[in-house]
Amino acid sequence: MSEIKKVPVGVSARHIHLASEHVEILFGSGAALTEMKPLSQPGQFAANETVEVYGPKGSFAKVRILGPARKATQLEVSRTDAFALGLKPPLRESGKIEDTPGIRIIGPAGEVTVDKGVIVAARHIHFHTSDAERWGIADKQLLKVRVGGERGVIFEQVLARVSDQYALDMHIDTDEGNAANVSTGDYGEIVE
Amino acid sequence: MSEIKKVPVGVSARHIHLASEHVEILFGSGAALTEMKPLSQPGQFAANETVEVYGPKGSFAKVRILGPARKATQLEVSRTDAFALGLKPPLRESGKIEDTPGIRIIGPAGEVTVDKGVIVAARHIHFHTSDAERWGIADKQLLKVRVGGERGVIFEQVLARVSDQYALDMHIDTDEGNAANVSTGDYGEIVE
Repeated sequence: MSEIKKVPVGVSARHIHLASEHVEILFGSGAALTEMKPLSQPGQFAANETVEVYGPKGSFAKVRILGPARKATQLEVSRTDAFALGLKPPLRESGKIEDTPGIRIIGPAGEVTVDKGVIVAARHIHFHTSDAERWGIADKQLLKVRVGGERGVIFEQVLARVSDQYALDMHIDTDEGNAANVSTGDYGEIVE
Repeated sequence: MSEIKKVPVGVSARHIHLASEHVEILFGSGAALTEMKPLSQPGQFAANETVEVYGPKGSFAKVRILGPARKATQLEVSRTDAFALGLKPPLRESGKIEDTPGIRIIGPAGEVTVDKGVIVAARHIHFHTSDAERWGIADKQLLKVRVGGERGVIFEQVLARVSDQYALDMHIDTDEGNAANVSTGDYGEIVE
């Protein structure tokens, strides 16, 4: 009998990753992000700092920054958020920002407009190498995962991301969480 | 080989159904809803009229009324909308509004506060009796339906509603549509 492949679910609200040079423009020369709380992935954290983002149709006042700073600035929004901003970002794996819409970002010390970086994040699961080996799952594999109770959903095309730097966690956005009536702390089951 | 059970998808934005007496309070004595465009279900229409709705935390300025008037007033919102209003409506089949939150509704001629009627609509498919017979589907049966492309989802617990007054159409809300990247006019497939 095969083991049930149970995975904790994390529902990601809109958030932004910033390049170091943008941290300094937005928060002042020499500024660095400060940790509010750790995230499920080792070394990652929600920062105390937030920014405003402005799209052609709307804006969001307090977008949480996730740290540490990255190579490129990237805003991750739900499709609902994208409509509110007036943007049509593609569905993308984190880090793949070629041919994506840009965004205007305002911080307490300055502002920056990037010409790309807005994505809707593709649903994915972080596996520690040991979890992936135990369950026979390969990096980049597409999985099916059942979540939810009275509003049950099987998410297809769930991207497996395997690394010995990762902790087991499935990431979906607020639209996906709401569609399935699941919240951070609930569990999903890999069914295929 | 069994036939593919293909169903058109309609993504419902937030909307409200009004009791006749509330139409008159909100739009004036003797007022009636006027048709802007027909909906997929025979006799149902989107009205030209809209109302404002106020929850404890937020409001929506132009909520479309769907006609004709009904026995009870009912506001259907997504979970995203519910958070914005500051309400926690349950997932319900249309018409089942016992023990649901109320809402304040404002029209051009007056306002009304109902003590119940706010729901998150349970995903469902309207089947004409002939479709249901052909596919062997019973009224109230729970189905699984696959929708979406690169963001594919199988919706479980999709409620079958069968009547010779219905036209074949699957109704999901904006959270569900966004989670699967589907829009009105796309198709789903009943898989179980």
